[in-house]
Amino acid sequence: MQARVTVTLKTGILDPQGKAIEGALASLGFSGVGSVRQGKVFDIALEETDPARAKAQLDAMCEKLLANTVIESYRVELV
Amino acid sequence: MQARVTVTLKTGILDPQGKAIEGALASLGFSGVGSVRQGKVFDIALEETDPARAKAQLDAMCEKLLANTVIESYRVELV
Repeated sequence: MQARVTVTLKTGILDPQGKAIEGALASLGFSGVGSVRQGKVFDIALEETDPARAKAQLDAMCEKLLANTVIESYRVELV
Repeated sequence: MQARVTVTLKTGILDPQGKAIEGALASLGFSGVGSVRQGKVFDIALEETDPARAKAQLDAMCEKLLANTVIESYRVELV
């Protein structure tokens, strides 16, 4: 079973990397860019075939390793 | 208009970061993890309201800045 986990900064958390990209886009001549926020994506192949158990396993992985839940939120999708 | 750009390594490109995560998950006791690939996600707010023009602008941003198209592929979604 293939899964995609998306980890993004929570609203209100400062994102210096996103700000740097905003600046770089402006200096490349892209106008009309409001804001940029950067996050991470993990494509994970699991042997588990039961969707509910796979989801539970992925949630545990996010809590323990993939996301810093103090400042980041995560979303798990099975594909 | 809000857009999400996902940048992932092309198939066959070595992903040391993904390999490190695989190792970390195994050492945390998660079994049955086949492979992990890490990518990036950008949430971009655009002033452009026409979907076709927004898409064209985002493609240009990816080609010029957000993705290294030699080793990475990108996907643009308007949300």
